[in-house]
Amino acid sequence: MEYTNLVEPDEEPFYPFPTNPDAVRFIPLGGIGEIGKNMFAYEYGGKILVVDCGLLFPEQEMLGIDLVIPDVTYLLDHADDVLGIVITHGHEDHIGALPWVLNDLNVPVWGTKLTLGLVRNKLAEHTYLPPVELNLIDPDQPLELGPFTVEFFRVTHSIPDAVGLIITTPTGKTVHTGDFKFDQSPIFGQRTEVQKLALASASGIMALMCDVTNIERPGWVTSERSVAVTFDELFEDAGGRIIVACFASNIFRMQEVINVAARYNRRVCVIGRSMRANVDIARELGFMHLPSPDILIEPEEAAKLSAREVAVLTTGTQGEPLSALRLMSTGEHKYIKVGPGDLVVISASPIPGNEDLVYRTINQLFRQGAEVVYHGSEHTHVSGHGHEEELKMMLTLTAPRHLIPMHGEYRHLVRYRKTAETMGYATDRVSLLHSGDVLEITRDGAVVLGQVQAGRVMIDGLGVGDIGAVVLRDRKHLSEDGMLTAVVGIDSQTGEIVAGPDIVTRGFVYAEEAEELIGDAKTVVREAIAKLDISSSTDWESARATVRSALNKFVYARTKRRPMVIPVILEV
Amino acid sequence: MEYTNLVEPDEEPFYPFPTNPDAVRFIPLGGIGEIGKNMFAYEYGGKILVVDCGLLFPEQEMLGIDLVIPDVTYLLDHADDVLGIVITHGHEDHIGALPWVLNDLNVPVWGTKLTLGLVRNKLAEHTYLPPVELNLIDPDQPLELGPFTVEFFRVTHSIPDAVGLIITTPTGKTVHTGDFKFDQSPIFGQRTEVQKLALASASGIMALMCDVTNIERPGWVTSERSVAVTFDELFEDAGGRIIVACFASNIFRMQEVINVAARYNRRVCVIGRSMRANVDIARELGFMHLPSPDILIEPEEAAKLSAREVAVLTTGTQGEPLSALRLMSTGEHKYIKVGPGDLVVISASPIPGNEDLVYRTINQLFRQGAEVVYHGSEHTHVSGHGHEEELKMMLTLTAPRHLIPMHGEYRHLVRYRKTAETMGYATDRVSLLHSGDVLEITRDGAVVLGQVQAGRVMIDGLGVGDIGAVVLRDRKHLSEDGMLTAVVGIDSQTGEIVAGPDIVTRGFVYAEEAEELIGDAKTVVREAIAKLDISSSTDWESARATVRSALNKFVYARTKRRPMVIPVILEV
Repeated sequence: MEYTNLVEPDEEPFYPFPTNPDAVRFIPLGGIGEIGKNMFAYEYGGKILVVDCGLLFPEQEMLGIDLVIPDVTYLLDHADDVLGIVITHGHEDHIGALPWVLNDLNVPVWGTKLTLGLVRNKLAEHTYLPPVELNLIDPDQPLELGPFTVEFFRVTHSIPDAVGLIITTPTGKTVHTGDFKFDQSPIFGQRTEVQKLALASASGIMALMCDVTNIERPGWVTSERSVAVTFDELFEDAGGRIIVACFASNIFRMQEVINVAARYNRRVCVIGRSMRANVDIARELGFMHLPSPDILIEPEEAAKLSAREVAVLTTGTQGEPLSALRLMSTGEHKYIKVGPGDLVVISASPIPGNEDLVYRTINQLFRQGAEVVYHGSEHTHVSGHGHEEELKMMLTLTAPRHLIPMHGEYRHLVRYRKTAETMGYATDRVSLLHSGDVLEITRDGAVVLGQVQAGRVMIDGLGVGDIGAVVLRDRKHLSEDGMLTAVVGIDSQTGEIVAGPDIVTRGFVYAEEAEELIGDAKTVVREAIAKLDISSSTDWESARATVRSALNKFVYARTKRRPMVIPVILEV
Repeated sequence: MEYTNLVEPDEEPFYPFPTNPDAVRFIPLGGIGEIGKNMFAYEYGGKILVVDCGLLFPEQEMLGIDLVIPDVTYLLDHADDVLGIVITHGHEDHIGALPWVLNDLNVPVWGTKLTLGLVRNKLAEHTYLPPVELNLIDPDQPLELGPFTVEFFRVTHSIPDAVGLIITTPTGKTVHTGDFKFDQSPIFGQRTEVQKLALASASGIMALMCDVTNIERPGWVTSERSVAVTFDELFEDAGGRIIVACFASNIFRMQEVINVAARYNRRVCVIGRSMRANVDIARELGFMHLPSPDILIEPEEAAKLSAREVAVLTTGTQGEPLSALRLMSTGEHKYIKVGPGDLVVISASPIPGNEDLVYRTINQLFRQGAEVVYHGSEHTHVSGHGHEEELKMMLTLTAPRHLIPMHGEYRHLVRYRKTAETMGYATDRVSLLHSGDVLEITRDGAVVLGQVQAGRVMIDGLGVGDIGAVVLRDRKHLSEDGMLTAVVGIDSQTGEIVAGPDIVTRGFVYAEEAEELIGDAKTVVREAIAKLDISSSTDWESARATVRSALNKFVYARTKRRPMVIPVILEV
């Protein structure tokens, strides 16, 4: 396999802004003004510490794009000064870009045990990668990296082993929360280490970089324990098979399902490649415990047990077209046929934009006769991100001088600023940043010095960054009206048509039913070419333009559609 | 303009099911199992009464489709027996298919004053249509149509002049609610006429066809009055321009904005073609009243007034790419430049699937410096469809023997059945139907006899129903990986390549940066053709298949993408 380099590093690194020994710089390369591709550079004394390296799932109009990673040109320009990447937790929007970024920028990576396990698994899928140095974090030990001292605090989130960072430079301390909430009574895993934050604040915190995804939701996130109560009730009442769908990374939720299944004498069949891989990693690293050694079964075994003896754990909460749950809903899954008596529990909320696909899956499951329980009807899910009062508690604990909301769209950043105002923070103490902004933070305040290159690199198949606006515009055009190619061979001496015209269409009209239209289009091509005065000096580009224009007019008049018209003239 | 007929009516109508003189039939042609294209046939004694004739906005994967209408083959097959179409209210999902259906099935249409005004406006845009008979309903007078007696009851909804139907045949009464809620204190317009329903139930109601869109929402819809309170507070506090976006058909909401603007001495500029047309129709028919004759101003005048003197009413609540609000959010609107000090009020909820576009617009408006108030943050919208308790109240009022939920996806139908169970209705008294089901209703119960042809007719440009699965599949393929056309001219005598190969790509890679790839692809074509043993008896179809296969393999190996590969071989 071969990969395109994102950018060739310059010979001599160029720092566009003079370094201030009394300031630390914060440069988001993603994750602010968008939800996804979290990646943040901290800079002090010409050295760079990177936090997280995530991907973004493509938006609706990024047709055919597999995923999106941050543009790390700035880091490549200063490759020698990048000390490494510290990962806060193992979600895709925090680790997913590593295989591409490490290929161009082979720096050490730090993470907690589970996080590294997930990173290792991800890197192993990219066999072309050079060896990468992976270093284990002990959350109770500070990490010295050049001029940075990084201390860690454990946080509660929807994946185990997540941490936030307290980053100390000679200028002062900044707190980087990572994704967090304050669940006071999680069933598994850790509570957020509020004491460490309170202690750090005693010596003053210059800036707080805070996850603000859920700032629009009032109050506190309900405890994960409440979901376990719902599960228990559902399992107690169910007479048939139970299928629970959740995110593949939600180890806690999967553990709950396994435990409740054991209580009600059901065995658990895990379906979905990513979920099975994560169960293996979590078990191996001690983040998942089986109540009995034989509780997990293979799909073939599940088929042999009675419905009351089986629970299925699967992916597909977002209605993804090829997910196991979607296939079950349409009756196409190889092992699991859903029908009357079965209970499907969707243990996640739809991500904005996915509602249509999610509801379609739910409707289909109902049509199969199953009972479906989902976020709208029962308490089957709680978020991993703190609500407004939790974000306020984080401010109360850390009492920072300066606030930088992250992990949010622009509306979330604005809303966070409003919430902070209710706690006495003046507007100018909250920085609403964009990707690439260079924020200089001192003990007195923070100011945006300017911008470095940053943005979105689209990945499609093996291509990294080779899909741009032109290709996407063409895909959009093709998706709406299809294409019509007209091919004709011309004797360049005589100007006579010696072959064709042939017309090929795709995605425009069903060709077999449009013979007359295609026939007339050929006539249009012949007439357009007849009007050209073809000789050895013919400008073929303008000849093509003439044919295209004639076809465009003809097709629109007949159909009110505008397929992409592509004339090809072969000189014979 | 010319239109494709949906179907040629058969010479002799064929009724697949024997007529039962003691039964009325109910055949949904749309609007059950989906939200949109509401169209329902009632049949008695061989005569058909149609209720509503709506469109469906295309779903995500219906690439390039403009809109979707019901398949009315069944009605065309029995055209002589169709008495007419009664419209419940003027929303697109109840009237939007009329221009296409009336073109094939020219039957009389009945509606209330505003509804007919909106229908007339819609038909006027389709100049090819033959004259259509439009008849005014008096909601207090029964309408005799063949064996049907239709009585009307006014309902509260998010558009004025909406009605439900009480349809009496010799067999008994059925109630067709149309879209409704029970707002006990609407500011404008009517309350739902519960007395008429209660009186009708005194003689027994065989079946209730009920709008169940909001069955998942508990309680009652908050009164429209509460939105007016929010508007008043927002207008009182605002120091700059105010821009309110709502649905173009929500005459009540627009009236509220005009009234509150008048109270706070602002003049109102209405932007958006459909909204301006609806204001004109509503004023002309007495459904909208201006507090002062000069309150409405043109955009050019608005630009001359100070920000505090202006309110803008506009469309674009769903983030539609070409809507006025979207253009304002990106700074591209001709007249309205949104900036700091401006307040934007989004007075609608996102329709599931539109969230991404809606939030993108909101983020952009915040970036322009405006304050944005929307469904998540303030009480700026209430639904026009009753919540669960209202649907229960409808059941209590009508006490029907049989229940048919409509205007809902399948999950809503299932949920309605559950709610009805809590009120003592056995499962078999609730019919969950699909489009085309023929439900026979007698005083004793209801049973699905079978199915007639029904479904979705896609409209793209001038084409009605000519886009099928193949074309959509090709559009999807093209949208994901684009296309690659290879053109080559061959001397069919010698098998020599006499022109080309030429390679044209669109939506695949940016061609200027992929010269090497394109060059290698040409070599692949040459080699594939060299291997063919071309003679006068060559099977060109299989020759093309060989070239396609070679190119597919080459392209996937090099890029891990699968563009649509289209080889064209010209015989010279």
